[in-house]
Amino acid sequence: MTFGTVAILGPGLIGGSLALALAERGLADRLVIYSRKDATFPEIKKRIPQVHLTTDVVEAVRGADVVVLCVPIETMAGLVKQFADVLKPTALVTDVGSVKGSVDREIAPLLADKALWIGSHPMAGSEKAGFDVARADLFKSARVVLARSDTGTPSSTSKAIERAEALWGEVGGSTLIMTPHEHDEYVAHISHLPHLAAAALVNSTGPQYFSIAGTGFRDTTRVASGPPDMWAQIGLENREKISEAIAGYMQQLQILKDLLDQGNESGLREELQKAHDSRAEFLQQSK
Amino acid sequence: MTFGTVAILGPGLIGGSLALALAERGLADRLVIYSRKDATFPEIKKRIPQVHLTTDVVEAVRGADVVVLCVPIETMAGLVKQFADVLKPTALVTDVGSVKGSVDREIAPLLADKALWIGSHPMAGSEKAGFDVARADLFKSARVVLARSDTGTPSSTSKAIERAEALWGEVGGSTLIMTPHEHDEYVAHISHLPHLAAAALVNSTGPQYFSIAGTGFRDTTRVASGPPDMWAQIGLENREKISEAIAGYMQQLQILKDLLDQGNESGLREELQKAHDSRAEFLQQSK
Repeated sequence: MTFGTVAILGPGLIGGSLALALAERGLADRLVIYSRKDATFPEIKKRIPQVHLTTDVVEAVRGADVVVLCVPIETMAGLVKQFADVLKPTALVTDVGSVKGSVDREIAPLLADKALWIGSHPMAGSEKAGFDVARADLFKSARVVLARSDTGTPSSTSKAIERAEALWGEVGGSTLIMTPHEHDEYVAHISHLPHLAAAALVNSTGPQYFSIAGTGFRDTTRVASGPPDMWAQIGLENREKISEAIAGYMQQLQILKDLLDQGNESGLREELQKAHDSRAEFLQQSK
Repeated sequence: MTFGTVAILGPGLIGGSLALALAERGLADRLVIYSRKDATFPEIKKRIPQVHLTTDVVEAVRGADVVVLCVPIETMAGLVKQFADVLKPTALVTDVGSVKGSVDREIAPLLADKALWIGSHPMAGSEKAGFDVARADLFKSARVVLARSDTGTPSSTSKAIERAEALWGEVGGSTLIMTPHEHDEYVAHISHLPHLAAAALVNSTGPQYFSIAGTGFRDTTRVASGPPDMWAQIGLENREKISEAIAGYMQQLQILKDLLDQGNESGLREELQKAHDSRAEFLQQSK
């Protein structure tokens, strides 16, 4: 199968990896990549010789069957406004943003009656950013959340879901449908909170202790090496749910601190056992 | 070079890995492993055919040039009391416990005038436990803290340090000398706090969100799969310093939460940038 003409807007880690995956598997008759700047074009051309590269977003989406927004969340709506009118009515537009509520509220109305729309969030990535670290197998075994629009606009139809499922499925992902609201609550807990928890851990530890830090510290803080701009933006977009998640996290830390202060070894063991067993369940689920 | 007769007390992940490393490199003329129970003996014998196995700790240390305590911290002193009188006066006794202050206070007096003593803490490990996951290269590039006794007992001499440096160096580690007190403050921040932070993260998230958890959550919480008994014990042994570290960590989380609640994107970006840069420094140092 192929998805016809696929336009990928933004060749960063996620957009670049999607382009590589589509190219490697021959899933696009025509593959177009838009970037605001052409600095990365030589490198992209080297890895994907057949790609069409452009800095003109209207040219990029013209005639496209699938358009994937892989640009920073805050720039998405502005971009969609530029090209909404040239979209094929049968085109599927989706994105890869880490927050779905605000994106859906902005994008769904812009695309109503102009194209099919559904938000996507592939739960794949790296603490590194950019096309340099893009790879064709990034989505292998990755969960991809499809955020079925609950804005009341008619664009997020079963047809859109079906095609988005096919797209992510063909590059190795497994999809899951949620509302944007549900998605944002989920990622606040399992993605955004861990990012901020890792950053806080690095900041509270500080370089004076690094000389003996080992693999435990390395792994626990890995995501703190993610791009600060992107994560500040994600944080703000999903601030209410993340703030709640941090509050809940601090309660759990307080429980552990109290048990330590009381010298309550059995209580501490119980909490650690709960975490141990719960994580075993996570590993089981993510097999 | 060889270290003569080496007795390893406790063939878990660390003790087992040390035995494998010594055997693989031919660093012991005679390698003895003591375990309280003989259940793992067939498996050990299979991987290290030349090993001498015993459940009698006095027999294990008799004539040993190096004795390494790899048993749980709370059982160390009881074990040392059993065998202190049969030690060769030139023997080096060390341990691999994750806390050094309490261990040193207990063990150093028991060994004064009976053997050389210095505490060790190899910053290597895994969230998995037991001889099954032991491997000869566990200490490759690992930091090993040598805790120079500050109890005033004469056992922790430069001779002890020199031999402990050689031992860990030959199996791939790089040593660093601290006082037990300094060590415990360091590990409270870069090992014990990350463990409790990971456990709290799993407990505050909960299985209802696991369906979309990806590699970020997996890595951030990896150490929460460590043995609950061992970590409860470590936590209690180093409770004061860990409690302080948790308090400092919660302050950092509160800073991030406040920035989110205020919608302060630039402030949030600054904090994330600080963590990003600080972690880059850690990666640089641990190269």
